Amino acid sequence: MTEQAAEKPIRIASILFERLDQIDLTGPFEVFSRLTNCSYDIVAKEIRPMKDANGLTITPNQSFAECQDVDVLHIPGGPGQEDLMEDEETLSFIRDKASRATFVFSVCTGALVCGAAGLLRGRKATTHWGFKTLLPHFGAISVDSRVVIDGNLISCAGVTAGIDGALMVACLVRGQAAAEQIQLLMEYAPDPPFNCGAPDVARADLVQSAREALEPLLSRRLATARRCAEKLGIVS
Amino acid sequence: MTEQAAEKPIRIASILFERLDQIDLTGPFEVFSRLTNCSYDIVAKEIRPMKDANGLTITPNQSFAECQDVDVLHIPGGPGQEDLMEDEETLSFIRDKASRATFVFSVCTGALVCGAAGLLRGRKATTHWGFKTLLPHFGAISVDSRVVIDGNLISCAGVTAGIDGALMVACLVRGQAAAEQIQLLMEYAPDPPFNCGAPDVARADLVQSAREALEPLLSRRLATARRCAEKLGIVS
Repeated sequence: MTEQAAEKPIRIASILFERLDQIDLTGPFEVFSRLTNCSYDIVAKEIRPMKDANGLTITPNQSFAECQDVDVLHIPGGPGQEDLMEDEETLSFIRDKASRATFVFSVCTGALVCGAAGLLRGRKATTHWGFKTLLPHFGAISVDSRVVIDGNLISCAGVTAGIDGALMVACLVRGQAAAEQIQLLMEYAPDPPFNCGAPDVARADLVQSAREALEPLLSRRLATARRCAEKLGIVS
Repeated sequence: MTEQAAEKPIRIASILFERLDQIDLTGPFEVFSRLTNCSYDIVAKEIRPMKDANGLTITPNQSFAECQDVDVLHIPGGPGQEDLMEDEETLSFIRDKASRATFVFSVCTGALVCGAAGLLRGRKATTHWGFKTLLPHFGAISVDSRVVIDGNLISCAGVTAGIDGALMVACLVRGQAAAEQIQLLMEYAPDPPFNCGAPDVARADLVQSAREALEPLLSRRLATARRCAEKLGIVS
């Protein structure tokens, strides 16, 4: 990437909504807000304080109506994403912005919102490990990777995977040196205390109890995914 | 830990302030807010929206005056921490709560606020790699580790280290199985795109340019640290 390309002004928008999983937004925020020559907004249907799934209050700075075209459209997930999957105002906003964005970037179950907007048809994608079985309902090809890049679609695994994904996006829009600088400044040399952050490495009993904890949410999301698939005319 | 001890009700408070580095708070929030039988509050001098160093608006849910004694007091860092280092209202609040807390948990330059409150005298501690030289001004023994535990003081390295530290705190207050369950649910199996998240692994030119970027902040914090040391009667 030439120095000029690296410094082309860019726009990024992260979507905020009620009962999102806050770190799906705040993890990537930490990366995107450090990019130079970048206009970065937190957008929502309305500008008012919103509570994440566990009660953190975050306020957007821009409404959907005010949002210009963006280079990167970031869609977080979390329990509240289910409402968005059948909310035409949000789906239209995402479809419209995505059609002219350089990258669409989903974190965790934000991928399911992209799916409901019809953006996953025939695309490789990932989401939180507990909800990957839902991806085919949107015509997506589920991939076992923490960050999946398919054309202009970048999707991440669950929750904290958004930090890894956002650093990849930073690299794509600003070059590797810029992304590395951000990674060093945010001291991102993770050292998890346990080796259990994904179902392929965690103990079977731990995975089992996590699946049980997620089951009610999975059932509801499956029903919603089926309605979305029908509307999109996708046979999975 | 017995099952009964694991389920003793606990209280956690995270301190919010203007120009903090938001992920110093939101990283641990993701962990603490998932603990069972836990009353968790975001506390600040006043209940009003506050902007992080890069513009994210977060609103606390509790004022210092309303805050009861807590089991875990969490102190994030970020550029705004410098003002706290000479703010007697905040330092008194921290000293008072810390004196009866089971754990004091600092993230990034939150350690320097703990230092200004006199909590680091003779204690092993860490902070963001760019500011570790300031620790001796508070009588602390600087340790090269991502998470440092010395008695009831748990301090983390910079920014994203708060996630690793919060999982350690979760383990200490609720046992390893509970912490592991949270780690799996938040899919914390990090896979950074580059190996450059700490100065001992990053390229020398990258570390040099990061040091240059941090220099103005380091100079200001050094002057503040010296004034704090004088007030605390610490000769470093």
